[in-house]
Amino acid sequence: MIKLFLYLLPLIISCNAIHPGPVVKATKGEVWPKPQVEEKTDEYYIVRPHGFNFKGPNNIGCPNFLNDAFTRYWTIIATSSSLERRGRLHEVGRKPKTEFWKDDSSYIGDLNGLDVQLRECSSEDVRPAFGDNENYTLNITKEGASLAADTIWGVLRGLETFSQLIYLEQDNLIINLTDISDFPRFSHRGLLLDTSRHFLPVYIILQTLDAMSYNKFNVFHWHITDDHSFPYKSRTFPELSDKGAFHPVSKVYEQSDVSKVIEYARLRGIRVIPEFDTPGHTSSWGAAHPELLTTCYTNDKPDEDLGPMDPTKNSTYDFLTKLFTEVVDVFPDSYFHIGGDEVDFYCWKHNPNITSFMEANKISTYEDLESYFIQHVVDLLDSLNSKYLVWEEVFVNGVTLPNSTLVHVWRDNGHETLNEVTKAGKYGIFSSCWYLDHLSSGGDWEKFYECEALDFPGTDEQKQLVLGGEACMWSEAVNEYNIMPRVWPRASAVAEKLWSAEDVNDTAAAKGRLEEHTCRMNNRGIAAQPPNGPGVCL
Amino acid sequence: MIKLFLYLLPLIISCNAIHPGPVVKATKGEVWPKPQVEEKTDEYYIVRPHGFNFKGPNNIGCPNFLNDAFTRYWTIIATSSSLERRGRLHEVGRKPKTEFWKDDSSYIGDLNGLDVQLRECSSEDVRPAFGDNENYTLNITKEGASLAADTIWGVLRGLETFSQLIYLEQDNLIINLTDISDFPRFSHRGLLLDTSRHFLPVYIILQTLDAMSYNKFNVFHWHITDDHSFPYKSRTFPELSDKGAFHPVSKVYEQSDVSKVIEYARLRGIRVIPEFDTPGHTSSWGAAHPELLTTCYTNDKPDEDLGPMDPTKNSTYDFLTKLFTEVVDVFPDSYFHIGGDEVDFYCWKHNPNITSFMEANKISTYEDLESYFIQHVVDLLDSLNSKYLVWEEVFVNGVTLPNSTLVHVWRDNGHETLNEVTKAGKYGIFSSCWYLDHLSSGGDWEKFYECEALDFPGTDEQKQLVLGGEACMWSEAVNEYNIMPRVWPRASAVAEKLWSAEDVNDTAAAKGRLEEHTCRMNNRGIAAQPPNGPGVCL
Repeated sequence: MIKLFLYLLPLIISCNAIHPGPVVKATKGEVWPKPQVEEKTDEYYIVRPHGFNFKGPNNIGCPNFLNDAFTRYWTIIATSSSLERRGRLHEVGRKPKTEFWKDDSSYIGDLNGLDVQLRECSSEDVRPAFGDNENYTLNITKEGASLAADTIWGVLRGLETFSQLIYLEQDNLIINLTDISDFPRFSHRGLLLDTSRHFLPVYIILQTLDAMSYNKFNVFHWHITDDHSFPYKSRTFPELSDKGAFHPVSKVYEQSDVSKVIEYARLRGIRVIPEFDTPGHTSSWGAAHPELLTTCYTNDKPDEDLGPMDPTKNSTYDFLTKLFTEVVDVFPDSYFHIGGDEVDFYCWKHNPNITSFMEANKISTYEDLESYFIQHVVDLLDSLNSKYLVWEEVFVNGVTLPNSTLVHVWRDNGHETLNEVTKAGKYGIFSSCWYLDHLSSGGDWEKFYECEALDFPGTDEQKQLVLGGEACMWSEAVNEYNIMPRVWPRASAVAEKLWSAEDVNDTAAAKGRLEEHTCRMNNRGIAAQPPNGPGVCL
Repeated sequence: MIKLFLYLLPLIISCNAIHPGPVVKATKGEVWPKPQVEEKTDEYYIVRPHGFNFKGPNNIGCPNFLNDAFTRYWTIIATSSSLERRGRLHEVGRKPKTEFWKDDSSYIGDLNGLDVQLRECSSEDVRPAFGDNENYTLNITKEGASLAADTIWGVLRGLETFSQLIYLEQDNLIINLTDISDFPRFSHRGLLLDTSRHFLPVYIILQTLDAMSYNKFNVFHWHITDDHSFPYKSRTFPELSDKGAFHPVSKVYEQSDVSKVIEYARLRGIRVIPEFDTPGHTSSWGAAHPELLTTCYTNDKPDEDLGPMDPTKNSTYDFLTKLFTEVVDVFPDSYFHIGGDEVDFYCWKHNPNITSFMEANKISTYEDLESYFIQHVVDLLDSLNSKYLVWEEVFVNGVTLPNSTLVHVWRDNGHETLNEVTKAGKYGIFSSCWYLDHLSSGGDWEKFYECEALDFPGTDEQKQLVLGGEACMWSEAVNEYNIMPRVWPRASAVAEKLWSAEDVNDTAAAKGRLEEHTCRMNNRGIAAQPPNGPGVCL
């Protein structure tokens, strides 16, 4: 048989010599993130794309949804072959193709298709939602290949895994006999993009959604507004982006752009959760609506500056009611991220109206004033039947939150905070050590991989309240020119922490798979950067 | 008059408030790197690309060379206008164009051309060389615009400056009345790319040469081979890349590729200096020629590993003579970088043949053995009439070097080393604090900008021996997917340190110009990353 598994042998390197070639050899046909249960043999099929078909279930709905996915993955498989060959086309004096499998007892035959079984699909319009069942089983046996899942989301995850099991061997696509039973460790596996500090064109967001699906992420957290720009073009208040975007036409997300993003994400089993951060991080709102923000005072006189939203005016809440009613309608996910982080109290402290209001309402601290504001927003979203995420400050400041709230933990002492959050019976989402804007030299993914969300001394009951986490790409220093290689494959490290079993935590063992996964993303058009030092994708 | 210079006013920002919009406002029509002498007024011309022409000298040679440059810069000017307009094309409800200049006393008229005066051009085949005169003067006066230089290289630098003076104002290209007299502070202004640790496709090298010309770099230091791969396809020893490249066909530089790079660089006034690093950093040579390298020993027996080149064998020097004779022929620059850094003595120490050789030749230290090797290479290049650069270790180890040698200082204590190098009467090239592979969060260019090559306590005579420096992009963690945004605009910071006057060293003052320059590079197709936090290119 051909030596398919030699690459799995540990490399024996002496203490001093540097060997030519890649530092980390890519695996072949290994899956990222690693499945929960996987067994493989060295017996294999050959996959010939033009003789290969996905076979959908006959007894179930959603044929269009499935066919869209089948076409996508058939294309991925077909091009992973032709892309590889293209690089070799002009190879001078290369050996004639050998039909290496002919005398190989491990060769089972050609794989003609994947039989897909889906228990139930409610409708073509089905949307991913919090807590979806994403389980699937995938069996490549001598009798053929089959994928079974309860939901369309499980099918999507299984198709991704199937496409990753296929690898190139001497110009042929190979898949080993494999049994996989897989499911995510956490329900909420997110990537945050900040489209305020730099504008990100829609095509970059769509490419990111593609890459997210290759990593089994299921939440796109769209931090759509912040201090520096307001690119969301509101139906109700178009002046917010007319005046608050970096450019009123070329740097805004039209309603049709937002729909495009949501639909593209849906077809990949990815939820889109918008964040309209308040009461801080709102300077850009003030370009069109300065009355929403707190007037700052210097030496007891108003100056030119504006601070956080003004929590004392009913008009602030009236405005938010109108805007958030629209947003909840535009973004179909049942969750909304209401922000609440990093409120600067300077302007509140110096504004005499704020002071009078606090005295009149017996509010003694600025944390309590912030809570007063957030309580209004929370009540508003309750009235809109929307659930929400909040940044950890909202919990820490003691706002009354329903149990459905997800507390998003991000500051440095995140594990302690998660302990507190879950001790209080609240759900936690973890990001503290997954900030992609924190750069180091080198491949710079290991630090993300070596951070475990549940590494705090709580009870099992507490840990079950941690529903997942998010990799966060704040965009102070990224735009369309560098965001793809900055996010990928560094976010892939987080993806594996969120999907795979807790004991999948050996960085050295992950390197070869991440090397392969990075090249796989490159082949699929994602500009992922090299993770492991000197190397090559062939 | 229109308020062209408002952007130059310092922003008055109170201690707390964050203002919407970019953190650093881009300047308009400011030049990077900053010219030595520049005077500007607020009077201006409008440049209409389709009525604009470069007028070459009638009395001088090299019309083809000049016309190539004229076409390139005419295209840059024309597209800088149309690119800007494209983003505004669909602007709903935008104001009709105003002919703002009509009643503006600062408006001089339309600029129909740039009159180019060149003192001398020896031939169409002229090549950039060490110490070239790159001076130019550029005058935009009421009488018209003129550029004068002694050499074609000065013309190229002046054309770049001219193109940067033009900026967009209300959909019109503007240039202010300006007098510039400019020249470089240092003769050797380089960028190193490492094409061994990852292969860089030729198109990436050409894009990099474009970007270098936009920053007035004049040396492309091509670190073409190293331990991990040998991508140079030699005429004499094609087996070196057949076996030592990451792929013998798709990851090699053919002779035609090398010619393409050299010619592309020449037309932009950029020298190409190849580096074939020896005796260390040569593992990839051993794939085809293991006999060149030192056999490593474990427990007094040869093991599977190979170390640095074997300095004891005449065959090593015979091989290098043949290869370097070819290389000196292929690369026309009179300088060659022979490396000599980071030699690991482990294999030399344990190999009994090396030990015998050292005893027989009365060589008592491994540093001396390394010097013995380098002395052969140095003598070889002398015999080939080539000059050379060496990494600092070669100087530190005491190899006899002719005065024409450039000692390339790269280690952390670089300023001390420069002091020693120049005290010994040798030329120095500085890179110690300009390693682009050293990453920090954020825009990450300030640390390069705040490093001054001449910041050591030597005499004026010593400092005149420092001929320049290089930004170094070692490629452990970069390939075609991330190299452009990692290099640009971080290398631009180094470019200004090498071209502009020593007192151009105020980081805060540079920010707005670098913001503009980054957007300018983006408009010209260079994927430079954002330097200064939240912002936008319009």
